[in-house]
Amino acid sequence: MLIYGRQAVLTALREGQVRRLFLANGIERATRAEFLREAGRSGVPSEDLPRIELDQALRTTHHQGVAAEVAELAFAAPEAPFELAARRGERLLLVCLAHVTDPRNYGAIIRAAEALGAHGVVTEARRSAPLTPVVAKTSAGATAHLPLLQVTNLPRYLAELKQRAVWVYGAAAEAPRGPRDLDWDRDVALVVGSEGEGLRRIVRAACDELVALPLRGRTPSLNAAVAAALLVHEALMARDAAHAARGIDGGAPPEPDRQP
Amino acid sequence: MLIYGRQAVLTALREGQVRRLFLANGIERATRAEFLREAGRSGVPSEDLPRIELDQALRTTHHQGVAAEVAELAFAAPEAPFELAARRGERLLLVCLAHVTDPRNYGAIIRAAEALGAHGVVTEARRSAPLTPVVAKTSAGATAHLPLLQVTNLPRYLAELKQRAVWVYGAAAEAPRGPRDLDWDRDVALVVGSEGEGLRRIVRAACDELVALPLRGRTPSLNAAVAAALLVHEALMARDAAHAARGIDGGAPPEPDRQP
Repeated sequence: MLIYGRQAVLTALREGQVRRLFLANGIERATRAEFLREAGRSGVPSEDLPRIELDQALRTTHHQGVAAEVAELAFAAPEAPFELAARRGERLLLVCLAHVTDPRNYGAIIRAAEALGAHGVVTEARRSAPLTPVVAKTSAGATAHLPLLQVTNLPRYLAELKQRAVWVYGAAAEAPRGPRDLDWDRDVALVVGSEGEGLRRIVRAACDELVALPLRGRTPSLNAAVAAALLVHEALMARDAAHAARGIDGGAPPEPDRQP
Repeated sequence: MLIYGRQAVLTALREGQVRRLFLANGIERATRAEFLREAGRSGVPSEDLPRIELDQALRTTHHQGVAAEVAELAFAAPEAPFELAARRGERLLLVCLAHVTDPRNYGAIIRAAEALGAHGVVTEARRSAPLTPVVAKTSAGATAHLPLLQVTNLPRYLAELKQRAVWVYGAAAEAPRGPRDLDWDRDVALVVGSEGEGLRRIVRAACDELVALPLRGRTPSLNAAVAAALLVHEALMARDAAHAARGIDGGAPPEPDRQP
Protein backbone atom coordinates (compact mmCIF):
# COMPACT_ATOMS: atom_id res chain seq x y z
CA MET A 1 0.00 0.00 0.00
CA LEU A 2 1.15 3.56 -0.71
CA ILE A 3 1.05 6.26 1.92
CA TYR A 4 2.02 9.88 1.29
CA GLY A 5 2.64 13.25 2.90
CA ARG A 6 5.82 14.24 4.67
CA GLN A 7 4.82 13.70 8.29
CA ALA A 8 3.09 10.35 7.63
CA VAL A 9 6.01 9.01 5.59
CA LEU A 10 8.62 10.25 8.05
CA THR A 11 6.81 8.58 10.94
CA ALA A 12 6.49 5.34 8.97
CA LEU A 13 10.22 5.45 8.11
CA ARG A 14 11.16 5.93 11.75
CA GLU A 15 8.86 3.07 12.73
CA GLY A 16 10.56 0.75 10.22
CA GLN A 17 7.34 0.20 8.28
CA VAL A 18 8.51 1.44 4.89
CA ARG A 19 9.48 -1.02 2.15
CA ARG A 20 10.32 1.58 -0.50
CA LEU A 21 10.51 5.38 -0.52
CA PHE A 22 9.42 7.54 -3.47
CA LEU A 23 10.61 11.13 -3.88
CA ALA A 24 9.29 13.48 -6.55
CA ASN A 25 11.82 15.35 -8.64
CA GLY A 26 12.03 18.96 -7.57
CA ILE A 27 11.35 18.73 -3.84
CA GLU A 28 13.61 20.94 -1.73
CA ARG A 29 17.12 19.68 -1.20
CA ALA A 30 16.88 19.73 2.61
CA THR A 31 13.68 17.68 2.63
CA ARG A 32 15.20 15.23 0.18
CA ALA A 33 18.32 14.86 2.32
CA GLU A 34 16.25 14.30 5.45
CA PHE A 35 14.21 11.50 3.86
CA LEU A 36 17.25 9.84 2.32
CA ARG A 37 19.03 9.95 5.67
CA GLU A 38 16.08 8.30 7.42
CA ALA A 39 15.73 5.72 4.65
CA GLY A 40 19.48 5.00 4.68
CA ARG A 41 19.39 4.37 8.41
CA SER A 42 17.06 1.40 7.99
CA GLY A 43 18.27 0.30 4.56
CA VAL A 44 15.07 1.30 2.77
CA PRO A 45 15.56 1.65 -1.02
CA SER A 46 14.44 4.95 -2.52
CA GLU A 47 13.39 5.97 -5.99
CA ASP A 48 13.16 9.36 -7.71
CA LEU A 49 10.34 9.94 -10.11
CA PRO A 50 8.49 12.77 -11.85
CA ARG A 51 5.88 14.44 -9.67
CA ILE A 52 3.15 13.60 -12.15
CA GLU A 53 3.78 9.89 -11.63
CA LEU A 54 3.12 10.34 -7.91
CA ASP A 55 -0.02 12.37 -8.74
CA GLN A 56 -1.28 9.49 -10.84
CA ALA A 57 -0.28 6.62 -8.56
CA LEU A 58 -1.82 8.34 -5.52
CA ARG A 59 -4.74 9.96 -7.35
CA THR A 60 -4.08 13.20 -5.49
CA THR A 61 -1.69 16.13 -5.82
CA HIS A 62 -1.55 16.61 -2.03
CA HIS A 63 1.40 14.30 -1.43
CA GLN A 64 4.06 16.98 -0.85
CA GLY A 65 6.39 15.08 -3.18
CA VAL A 66 6.84 12.12 -0.83
CA ALA A 67 5.29 8.65 -0.79
CA ALA A 68 6.15 5.25 0.61
CA GLU A 69 5.17 1.68 0.13
CA VAL A 70 4.18 0.16 3.46
CA ALA A 71 2.43 -2.97 4.65
CA GLU A 72 -1.35 -2.74 4.42
CA LEU A 73 -3.00 -0.72 7.16
CA ALA A 74 -4.66 -3.27 9.37
CA PHE A 75 -7.12 -3.26 12.22
CA ALA A 76 -5.86 -4.41 15.61
CA ALA A 77 -6.94 -7.39 17.66
CA PRO A 78 -9.97 -6.75 19.90
CA GLU A 79 -7.87 -6.93 23.07
CA ALA A 80 -5.23 -4.43 21.90
CA PRO A 81 -6.72 -1.30 23.55
CA PHE A 82 -7.17 -3.17 26.84
CA GLU A 83 -3.59 -4.39 26.67
CA LEU A 84 -2.28 -0.90 25.90
CA ALA A 85 -4.15 0.54 28.90
CA ALA A 86 -2.87 -2.26 31.15
CA ARG A 87 0.70 -1.79 29.93
CA ARG A 88 0.51 1.90 30.82
CA GLY A 89 -1.19 1.18 34.14
CA GLU A 90 -4.15 3.34 33.10
CA ARG A 91 -7.90 3.08 33.11
CA LEU A 92 -9.18 2.34 29.59
CA LEU A 93 -10.16 5.27 27.36
CA LEU A 94 -11.58 4.09 24.06
CA VAL A 95 -13.04 6.36 21.36
CA CYS A 96 -15.93 4.80 19.43
CA LEU A 97 -17.08 6.46 16.23
CA ALA A 98 -20.69 6.19 15.17
CA HIS A 99 -21.13 6.89 11.47
CA VAL A 100 -18.07 9.11 10.97
CA THR A 101 -17.77 8.78 7.20
CA ASP A 102 -15.19 11.46 6.32
CA PRO A 103 -11.72 9.86 6.14
CA ARG A 104 -10.09 13.18 7.12
CA ASN A 105 -12.19 13.28 10.25
CA TYR A 106 -11.32 9.66 10.99
CA GLY A 107 -7.61 10.45 10.58
CA ALA A 108 -7.86 13.64 12.64
CA ILE A 109 -9.59 11.72 15.45
CA ILE A 110 -6.87 9.03 15.42
CA ARG A 111 -4.19 11.75 15.59
CA ALA A 112 -5.82 13.59 18.48
CA ALA A 113 -6.76 10.42 20.37
CA GLU A 114 -3.22 9.02 20.14
CA ALA A 115 -1.47 12.31 20.88
CA LEU A 116 -3.64 13.07 23.90
CA GLY A 117 -3.35 9.53 25.30
CA ALA A 118 -6.43 7.40 24.51
CA HIS A 119 -6.02 3.66 23.96
CA GLY A 120 -7.87 3.00 20.73
CA VAL A 121 -10.41 4.10 18.14
CA VAL A 122 -13.32 1.84 17.17
CA THR A 123 -15.37 2.10 14.00
CA GLU A 124 -18.27 0.14 12.63
CA ALA A 125 -17.62 -1.86 9.45
CA ARG A 126 -20.53 -0.27 7.63
CA ARG A 127 -21.29 3.46 7.89
CA SER A 128 -17.63 4.42 8.45
CA ALA A 129 -14.69 5.84 6.59
CA PRO A 130 -12.44 2.96 5.48
CA LEU A 131 -8.84 2.74 6.71
CA THR A 132 -7.04 4.24 3.71
CA PRO A 133 -3.86 6.22 3.00
CA VAL A 134 -5.87 9.45 3.40
CA VAL A 135 -6.61 8.38 6.98
CA ALA A 136 -2.95 7.55 7.63
CA LYS A 137 -1.85 10.92 6.24
CA THR A 138 -4.42 12.96 8.19
CA SER A 139 -3.45 11.07 11.35
CA ALA A 140 0.14 12.36 10.92
CA GLY A 141 1.38 8.81 11.40
CA ALA A 142 -0.69 8.07 14.51
CA THR A 143 -2.30 5.06 12.77
CA ALA A 144 1.03 3.31 13.51
CA HIS A 145 0.72 3.80 17.27
CA LEU A 146 -2.93 3.43 18.20
CA PRO A 147 -4.99 0.22 18.18
CA LEU A 148 -7.74 0.68 15.60
CA LEU A 149 -10.67 -1.70 15.88
CA GLN A 150 -13.47 -2.42 13.51
CA VAL A 151 -16.68 -3.93 14.84
CA THR A 152 -19.72 -5.27 13.02
CA ASN A 153 -22.36 -3.69 15.18
CA LEU A 154 -21.60 -0.74 17.44
CA PRO A 155 -24.56 -1.03 19.86
CA ARG A 156 -23.75 -4.71 20.40
CA TYR A 157 -20.07 -3.88 20.93
CA LEU A 158 -21.00 -1.23 23.49
CA ALA A 159 -23.15 -3.81 25.31
CA GLU A 160 -20.14 -6.14 25.42
CA LEU A 161 -17.99 -3.34 26.83
CA LYS A 162 -20.54 -2.80 29.59
CA GLN A 163 -20.28 -6.50 30.43
CA ARG A 164 -16.57 -5.86 30.98
CA ALA A 165 -17.21 -3.02 33.43
CA VAL A 166 -16.53 -0.28 30.88
CA TRP A 167 -18.74 2.81 31.19
CA VAL A 168 -20.15 4.14 27.94
CA TYR A 169 -20.46 7.93 27.56
CA GLY A 170 -22.01 9.38 24.42
CA ALA A 171 -21.44 12.89 23.08
CA ALA A 172 -24.82 14.57 22.52
CA ALA A 173 -25.27 18.32 22.09
CA GLU A 174 -28.53 18.39 24.06
CA ALA A 175 -27.30 16.40 27.08
CA PRO A 176 -27.85 18.18 30.41
CA ARG A 177 -24.44 17.23 31.77
CA GLY A 178 -21.04 18.58 30.80
CA PRO A 179 -17.69 16.77 30.86
CA ARG A 180 -16.88 18.03 34.36
CA ASP A 181 -20.11 16.52 35.72
CA LEU A 182 -19.04 12.97 34.87
CA ASP A 183 -16.74 10.50 36.58
CA TRP A 184 -13.87 9.72 34.22
CA ASP A 185 -11.81 7.80 36.75
CA ARG A 186 -13.06 4.44 35.49
CA ASP A 187 -12.76 2.47 32.26
CA VAL A 188 -14.63 4.58 29.70
CA ALA A 189 -15.71 4.21 26.09
CA LEU A 190 -16.54 7.57 24.56
CA VAL A 191 -19.00 7.49 21.66
CA VAL A 192 -18.82 10.33 19.15
CA GLY A 193 -21.32 10.65 16.33
CA SER A 194 -21.19 11.96 12.84
CA GLU A 195 -20.91 15.55 11.78
CA GLY A 196 -24.27 17.24 12.06
CA GLU A 197 -26.41 14.17 12.80
CA GLY A 198 -25.23 13.19 16.25
CA LEU A 199 -25.89 9.71 17.62
CA ARG A 200 -28.53 7.39 16.22
CA ARG A 201 -31.22 6.48 18.73
CA ILE A 202 -30.00 2.89 19.10
CA VAL A 203 -26.46 4.05 19.83
CA ARG A 204 -27.69 6.66 22.27
CA ALA A 205 -29.72 4.01 24.08
CA ALA A 206 -26.54 1.95 24.52
CA CYS A 207 -24.85 4.78 26.47
CA ASP A 208 -24.73 4.98 30.28
CA GLU A 209 -24.48 8.76 30.19
CA LEU A 210 -24.74 11.49 27.60
CA VAL A 211 -22.37 14.42 27.75
CA ALA A 212 -22.51 17.83 26.04
CA LEU A 213 -19.62 20.18 25.47
CA PRO A 214 -20.50 23.72 26.54
CA LEU A 215 -21.18 25.76 23.40
CA ARG A 216 -21.63 29.49 23.85
CA GLY A 217 -21.70 30.62 20.20
CA ARG A 218 -24.32 30.41 17.48
CA THR A 219 -22.77 27.52 15.54
CA PRO A 220 -24.76 24.57 16.87
CA SER A 221 -22.13 21.85 16.76
CA LEU A 222 -18.45 21.00 16.68
CA ASN A 223 -16.64 18.98 14.08
CA ALA A 224 -16.44 15.32 15.21
CA ALA A 225 -12.65 15.42 15.54
CA VAL A 226 -12.78 18.56 17.70
CA ALA A 227 -15.55 17.10 19.87
CA ALA A 228 -13.65 13.82 20.33
CA ALA A 229 -10.42 15.64 21.16
CA LEU A 230 -12.12 17.90 23.73
CA LEU A 231 -13.70 14.94 25.51
CA VAL A 232 -10.52 12.83 25.50
CA HIS A 233 -8.66 15.84 26.91
CA GLU A 234 -11.31 16.39 29.59
CA ALA A 235 -11.22 12.70 30.54
CA LEU A 236 -7.46 12.61 30.96
CA MET A 237 -7.31 15.92 32.84
CA ALA A 238 -10.00 14.60 35.20
CA ARG A 239 -7.98 11.42 35.77
CA ASP A 240 -4.89 13.50 36.54
CA ALA A 241 -6.89 15.45 39.10
CA ALA A 242 -8.28 12.23 40.62
CA HIS A 243 -4.80 10.73 40.85
CA ALA A 244 -3.44 13.87 42.46
CA ALA A 245 -6.30 13.83 45.00
CA ARG A 246 -5.61 10.17 45.81
CA GLY A 247 -1.95 11.02 46.19
CA ILE A 248 -2.85 13.54 48.87
CA ASP A 249 -5.18 11.38 50.93
CA GLY A 250 -3.03 8.30 50.35
CA GLY A 251 -6.03 6.13 49.59
CA ALA A 252 -5.98 3.26 47.12
CA PRO A 253 -7.62 3.75 43.73
CA PRO A 254 -11.32 2.92 43.99
CA GLU A 255 -12.49 -0.33 42.46
CA PRO A 256 -14.68 -0.02 39.40
CA ASP A 257 -18.21 0.33 40.73
CA ARG A 258 -19.92 -1.44 37.85
CA GLN A 259 -20.41 -5.17 38.32
CA PRO A 260 -19.95 -7.14 35.13
CA MET B 1 -19.46 34.82 -4.53
CA LEU B 2 -20.58 31.19 -4.48
CA ILE B 3 -20.63 29.14 -1.31
CA TYR B 4 -21.56 25.46 -1.17
CA GLY B 5 -22.27 22.54 1.12
CA ARG B 6 -25.55 21.91 2.91
CA GLN B 7 -24.75 23.27 6.34
CA ALA B 8 -22.98 26.40 5.05
CA VAL B 9 -25.79 27.23 2.60
CA LEU B 10 -28.54 26.52 5.14
CA THR B 11 -26.88 28.81 7.67
CA ALA B 12 -26.46 31.55 5.05
CA LEU B 13 -30.13 31.19 4.05
CA ARG B 14 -31.27 31.52 7.66
CA GLU B 15 -29.05 34.56 8.10
CA GLY B 16 -30.59 36.24 5.04
CA GLN B 17 -27.29 36.39 3.21
CA VAL B 18 -28.26 34.41 0.13
CA ARG B 19 -29.05 36.18 -3.16
CA ARG B 20 -29.75 33.04 -5.20
CA LEU B 21 -29.95 29.34 -4.38
CA PHE B 22 -28.69 26.59 -6.72
CA LEU B 23 -29.88 22.98 -6.38
CA ALA B 24 -28.39 20.12 -8.39
CA ASN B 25 -30.80 17.79 -10.15
CA GLY B 26 -31.09 14.51 -8.31
CA ILE B 27 -30.59 15.58 -4.69
CA GLU B 28 -32.96 13.86 -2.28
CA ARG B 29 -36.50 15.14 -2.22
CA ALA B 30 -36.49 15.95 1.52
CA THR B 31 -33.29 17.99 1.25
CA ARG B 32 -34.66 19.81 -1.76
CA ALA B 33 -37.89 20.62 0.07
CA GLU B 34 -36.01 21.89 3.11
CA PHE B 35 -33.89 24.28 1.05
CA LEU B 36 -36.84 25.52 -0.99
CA ARG B 37 -38.81 26.15 2.21
CA GLU B 38 -35.96 28.18 3.71
CA ALA B 39 -35.46 30.08 0.45
CA GLY B 40 -39.19 30.74 0.11
CA ARG B 41 -39.32 32.18 3.62
CA SER B 42 -36.96 35.01 2.68
CA GLY B 43 -37.98 35.33 -0.97
CA VAL B 44 -34.70 33.98 -2.34
CA PRO B 45 -34.96 32.79 -5.96
CA SER B 46 -33.78 29.25 -6.63
CA GLU B 47 -32.53 27.51 -9.71
CA ASP B 48 -32.21 23.82 -10.64
CA LEU B 49 -29.24 22.76 -12.69
CA PRO B 50 -27.31 19.64 -13.66
CA ARG B 51 -24.82 18.53 -11.03
CA ILE B 52 -21.95 18.85 -13.50
CA GLU B 53 -22.61 22.57 -13.85
CA LEU B 54 -22.16 22.96 -10.09
CA ASP B 55 -18.97 20.84 -10.28
CA GLN B 56 -17.62 23.20 -12.91
CA ALA B 57 -18.73 26.49 -11.37
CA LEU B 58 -17.36 25.51 -7.94
CA ARG B 59 -14.34 23.55 -9.21
CA THR B 60 -15.09 20.80 -6.71
CA THR B 61 -17.46 17.85 -6.51
CA HIS B 62 -17.82 18.19 -2.72
CA HIS B 63 -20.79 20.56 -2.80
CA GLN B 64 -23.48 18.04 -1.79
CA GLY B 65 -25.68 19.36 -4.62
CA VAL B 66 -26.27 22.75 -3.00
CA ALA B 67 -24.72 26.15 -3.64
CA ALA B 68 -25.66 29.77 -3.08
CA GLU B 69 -24.64 33.16 -4.29
CA VAL B 70 -23.82 35.40 -1.33
CA ALA B 71 -22.12 38.71 -0.79
CA GLU B 72 -18.33 38.47 -0.76
CA LEU B 73 -16.81 37.13 2.45
CA ALA B 74 -15.22 40.11 4.11
CA PHE B 75 -12.92 40.76 7.01
CA ALA B 76 -14.38 42.64 9.98
CA ALA B 77 -13.39 46.03 11.36
CA PRO B 78 -10.49 45.91 13.85
CA GLU B 79 -12.77 46.79 16.77
CA ALA B 80 -15.35 44.07 16.04
CA PRO B 81 -13.99 41.41 18.46
CA PHE B 82 -13.70 43.98 21.25
CA GLU B 83 -17.26 45.11 20.61
CA LEU B 84 -18.55 41.53 20.57
CA ALA B 85 -16.88 40.81 23.91
CA ALA B 86 -18.24 44.05 25.40
CA ARG B 87 -21.75 43.30 24.11
CA ARG B 88 -21.65 39.91 25.83
CA GLY B 89 -20.12 41.35 28.97
CA GLU B 90 -17.14 39.05 28.64
CA ARG B 91 -13.38 39.31 28.79
CA LEU B 92 -11.89 39.24 25.29
CA LEU B 93 -10.81 35.89 23.84
CA LEU B 94 -9.20 36.30 20.45
CA VAL B 95 -7.60 33.49 18.41
CA CYS B 96 -4.59 34.60 16.34
CA LEU B 97 -3.29 32.26 13.67
CA ALA B 98 0.40 32.31 12.78
CA HIS B 99 1.03 30.80 9.37
CA VAL B 100 -2.01 28.49 9.21
CA THR B 101 -2.10 27.96 5.46
CA ASP B 102 -4.63 25.15 5.05
CA PRO B 103 -8.07 26.64 4.32
CA ARG B 104 -9.77 23.62 5.91
CA ASN B 105 -7.87 24.24 9.12
CA TYR B 106 -8.76 27.93 8.97
CA GLY B 107 -12.44 27.04 8.54
CA ALA B 108 -12.32 24.40 11.28
CA ILE B 109 -10.76 26.92 13.66
CA ILE B 110 -13.44 29.50 12.88
CA ARG B 111 -16.15 26.89 13.50
CA ALA B 112 -14.71 25.75 16.83
CA ALA B 113 -13.84 29.27 18.00
CA GLU B 114 -17.35 30.55 17.26
CA ALA B 115 -19.18 27.51 18.62
CA LEU B 116 -17.19 27.47 21.85
CA GLY B 117 -17.52 31.23 22.39
CA ALA B 118 -14.40 33.15 21.33
CA HIS B 119 -14.74 36.67 19.93
CA GLY B 120 -12.70 36.59 16.74
CA VAL B 121 -10.03 34.95 14.61
CA VAL B 122 -7.06 36.95 13.34
CA THR B 123 -4.84 35.99 10.42
CA GLU B 124 -1.84 37.61 8.81
CA ALA B 125 -2.30 38.83 5.22
CA ARG B 126 0.70 36.89 3.97
CA ARG B 127 1.41 33.32 5.10
CA SER B 128 -2.27 32.49 5.69
CA ALA B 129 -5.11 30.66 4.02
CA PRO B 130 -7.28 33.22 2.17
CA LEU B 131 -10.93 33.69 3.11
CA THR B 132 -12.58 31.55 0.43
CA PRO B 133 -15.74 29.45 0.00
CA VAL B 134 -13.78 26.41 1.23
CA VAL B 135 -13.22 28.24 4.51
CA ALA B 136 -16.91 29.18 4.75
CA LYS B 137 -17.95 25.57 4.10
CA THR B 138 -15.51 24.04 6.59
CA SER B 139 -16.64 26.58 9.17
CA ALA B 140 -20.21 25.21 8.86
CA GLY B 141 -21.45 28.77 8.45
CA ALA B 142 -19.56 30.20 11.43
CA THR B 143 -17.83 32.75 9.16
CA ALA B 144 -21.17 34.60 9.29
CA HIS B 145 -21.08 34.98 13.08
CA LEU B 146 -17.50 35.57 14.10
CA PRO B 147 -15.41 38.71 13.48
CA LEU B 148 -12.53 37.69 11.22
CA LEU B 149 -9.61 40.10 11.13
CA GLN B 150 -6.66 40.28 8.82
CA VAL B 151 -3.52 42.08 9.95
CA THR B 152 -0.38 42.99 8.05
CA ASN B 153 2.12 41.94 10.66
CA LEU B 154 1.21 39.57 13.48
CA PRO B 155 4.03 40.41 15.94
CA ARG B 156 3.23 44.12 15.58
CA TYR B 157 -0.48 43.41 16.07
CA LEU B 158 0.27 41.41 19.22
CA ALA B 159 2.34 44.35 20.53
CA GLU B 160 -0.65 46.63 19.94
CA LEU B 161 -2.91 44.22 21.81
CA LYS B 162 -0.53 44.32 24.77
CA GLN B 163 -0.80 48.11 24.73
CA ARG B 164 -4.54 47.58 25.20
CA ALA B 165 -4.07 45.37 28.26
CA VAL B 166 -4.62 42.14 26.38
CA TRP B 167 -2.44 39.20 27.49
CA VAL B 168 -0.87 37.19 24.70
CA TYR B 169 -0.58 33.41 25.21
CA GLY B 170 1.14 31.31 22.57
CA ALA B 171 0.63 27.56 22.04
CA ALA B 172 4.03 25.83 22.05
CA ALA B 173 4.47 22.08 22.51
CA GLU B 174 7.62 22.48 24.64
CA ALA B 175 6.23 25.08 27.06
CA PRO B 176 6.58 24.10 30.72
CA ARG B 177 3.09 25.30 31.64
CA GLY B 178 -0.26 23.75 30.80
CA PRO B 179 -3.57 25.52 30.26
CA ARG B 180 -4.59 25.07 33.90
CA ASP B 181 -1.44 26.88 35.07
CA LEU B 182 -2.44 30.13 33.36
CA ASP B 183 -4.80 32.91 34.35
CA TRP B 184 -7.54 33.11 31.71
CA ASP B 185 -9.72 35.54 33.63
CA ARG B 186 -8.37 38.54 31.71
CA ASP B 187 -8.47 39.74 28.11
CA VAL B 188 -6.48 37.12 26.21
CA ALA B 189 -5.20 36.66 22.67
CA LEU B 190 -4.30 33.06 21.98
CA VAL B 191 -1.67 32.49 19.29
CA VAL B 192 -1.74 29.16 17.48
CA GLY B 193 0.92 28.23 14.96
CA SER B 194 0.98 26.18 11.84
CA GLU B 195 0.73 22.44 11.58
CA GLY B 196 4.05 20.89 12.44
CA GLU B 197 6.16 24.02 12.59
CA GLY B 198 4.82 25.76 15.67
CA LEU B 199 5.41 29.45 16.26
CA ARG B 200 8.17 31.42 14.51
CA ARG B 201 10.70 32.89 16.91
CA ILE B 202 9.49 36.47 16.39
CA VAL B 203 5.89 35.48 17.16
CA ARG B 204 6.97 33.49 20.19
CA ALA B 205 8.91 36.49 21.46
CA ALA B 206 5.73 38.57 21.25
CA CYS B 207 3.91 36.27 23.68
CA ASP B 208 3.57 36.93 27.42
CA GLU B 209 3.30 33.22 28.18
CA LEU B 210 3.67 29.97 26.29
CA VAL B 211 1.28 27.13 26.96
CA ALA B 212 1.49 23.44 26.09
CA LEU B 213 -1.37 20.99 25.90
CA PRO B 214 -0.59 17.80 27.81
CA LEU B 215 0.27 15.11 25.23
CA ARG B 216 0.68 11.58 26.55
CA GLY B 217 0.96 9.66 23.26
CA ARG B 218 3.72 9.26 20.72
CA THR B 219 2.31 11.63 18.09
CA PRO B 220 4.23 14.82 18.83
CA SER B 221 1.62 17.43 17.94
CA LEU B 222 -2.02 18.21 17.47
CA ASN B 223 -3.68 19.58 14.38
CA ALA B 224 -3.93 23.39 14.64
CA ALA B 225 -7.73 23.34 14.77
CA VAL B 226 -7.75 20.78 17.58
CA ALA B 227 -5.09 22.72 19.53
CA ALA B 228 -7.00 25.99 19.12
CA ALA B 229 -10.28 24.38 20.16
CA LEU B 230 -8.75 22.78 23.26
CA LEU B 231 -7.25 26.08 24.41
CA VAL B 232 -10.41 28.11 23.74
CA HIS B 233 -12.38 25.49 25.69
CA GLU B 234 -9.88 25.56 28.58
CA ALA B 235 -9.99 29.38 28.66
CA LEU B 236 -13.77 29.53 28.84
CA MET B 237 -14.05 26.75 31.41
CA ALA B 238 -11.50 28.58 33.55
CA ARG B 239 -13.52 31.79 33.27
CA ASP B 240 -16.67 29.93 34.32
CA ALA B 241 -14.82 28.62 37.37
CA ALA B 242 -13.50 32.10 38.19
CA HIS B 243 -16.97 33.61 37.88
CA ALA B 244 -18.44 30.90 40.11
CA ALA B 245 -15.73 31.52 42.71
CA ARG B 246 -16.41 35.27 42.63
CA GLY B 247 -20.11 34.53 42.99
CA ILE B 248 -19.38 32.62 46.19
CA ASP B 249 -17.11 35.13 47.87
CA GLY B 250 -19.16 38.05 46.59
CA GLY B 251 -16.09 39.95 45.45
CA ALA B 252 -15.99 42.23 42.44
CA PRO B 253 -14.22 41.01 39.32
CA PRO B 254 -10.54 41.88 39.55
CA GLU B 255 -9.29 44.73 37.43
CA PRO B 256 -6.94 43.79 34.62
CA ASP B 257 -3.49 43.77 36.18
CA ARG B 258 -1.62 44.87 33.07
CA GLN B 259 -1.14 48.61 32.70
CA PRO B 260 -1.37 49.79 29.13
